[in-house]
Amino acid sequence: MHVETSYFSVQTNGKGTYEITDEIQRKIDRCGLRSGTVTVFVQHTSCSIVIMENADPTARADLEEFFNRLVPEDADYFTHGSEGSDDMPSHIRMVLTRTSETVPIADVKMQLGTWQGLFLFEHRRSPHRRKIFITIIGE
Amino acid sequence: MHVETSYFSVQTNGKGTYEITDEIQRKIDRCGLRSGTVTVFVQHTSCSIVIMENADPTARADLEEFFNRLVPEDADYFTHGSEGSDDMPSHIRMVLTRTSETVPIADVKMQLGTWQGLFLFEHRRSPHRRKIFITIIGE
Amino acid sequence: MHVETSYFSVQTNGKGTYEITDEIQRKIDRCGLRSGTVTVFVQHTSCSIVIMENADPTARADLEEFFNRLVPEDADYFTHGSEGSDDMPSHIRMVLTRTSETVPIADVKMQLGTWQGLFLFEHRRSPHRRKIFITIIGE
Repeated sequence: MHVETSYFSVQTNGKGTYEITDEIQRKIDRCGLRSGTVTVFVQHTSCSIVIMENADPTARADLEEFFNRLVPEDADYFTHGSEGSDDMPSHIRMVLTRTSETVPIADVKMQLGTWQGLFLFEHRRSPHRRKIFITIIGE
Repeated sequence: MHVETSYFSVQTNGKGTYEITDEIQRKIDRCGLRSGTVTVFVQHTSCSIVIMENADPTARADLEEFFNRLVPEDADYFTHGSEGSDDMPSHIRMVLTRTSETVPIADVKMQLGTWQGLFLFEHRRSPHRRKIFITIIGE
Repeated sequence: MHVETSYFSVQTNGKGTYEITDEIQRKIDRCGLRSGTVTVFVQHTSCSIVIMENADPTARADLEEFFNRLVPEDADYFTHGSEGSDDMPSHIRMVLTRTSETVPIADVKMQLGTWQGLFLFEHRRSPHRRKIFITIIGE
């Protein structure tokens, strides 16, 4: 059994989804672990980790628009506004999605389905550098 | 320490929740691992894995109706429609729920609460064969 | 490699978020595991585990109010009402959030970001005693 921890950063350019599947698979390739799990954890409260359809970019555009409408910036009951009108909606969108994903590994490959990709989902409007922590456990 | 990976399929009959608790417990019984975690991961982007109240079927019916209303099929801003009007809502419902669950194991039993069951949550209207990957890690 | 399982209870005083970060870190300190993951799993279907901004309490108040509005108690299509009008909304809010979180550990510390805290999110109005199961895996 083996544990390997590491991290990497993603520079975002504002709101949207950023694929990180290949970066994570490369880390598994490098450590050579055959079988187990990888946990992908983002160390922030205004962006998320999601698994999403990775083939057609319009699916991700519709997803992002859904969240824009479900959690609007100008809700009149928000009191947490000191960091900008997109800050509180970012926290809520993060809670509605996920801070981490745990993906199975077999034969040194993440066992994603054909259309599954791993994405950083940035909820803030301005560019941010996001830190993603990777834990690979297995044998 | 031990890792065991396997998978099984669930044939769905359209939208709804399908309990998979017993199938997963049987896999733990077979491998005999006493203590650790099981990660249940579904390899698709239009269905989910959720833990839900397993006693009263009306709770699941109300849950399904909530998602029907929260993510309607006919949103006028959707552009990803080539696979049918229930495809894009399925991706969004998947992102709002979960692709995997990690459940603790102690004494060879999943440590679910009294009313917790594991369910495949199918979001498409037509029948689908869904592949679920299981990773058991522990000792 | 090592697995350690344990649990603790949180007494809630009705709806709201209750921080559990320190309690979980103390368990990691006690077992001394340097590197791996901790899975925090709540054994109930009417409360959640979430990671949330831990600095400004107004962020959590806004989050709670968002969920009150997104999943109202008096939806006219609910049929599961025998346990009170706040029961069915609690199940839905649980499914929209998370039953567990898996957090990386390095150097005997949870690798949370600066503003990340772990919270029990209670969805019922009356006080409840909630059981949280902890699994630490690593070396």
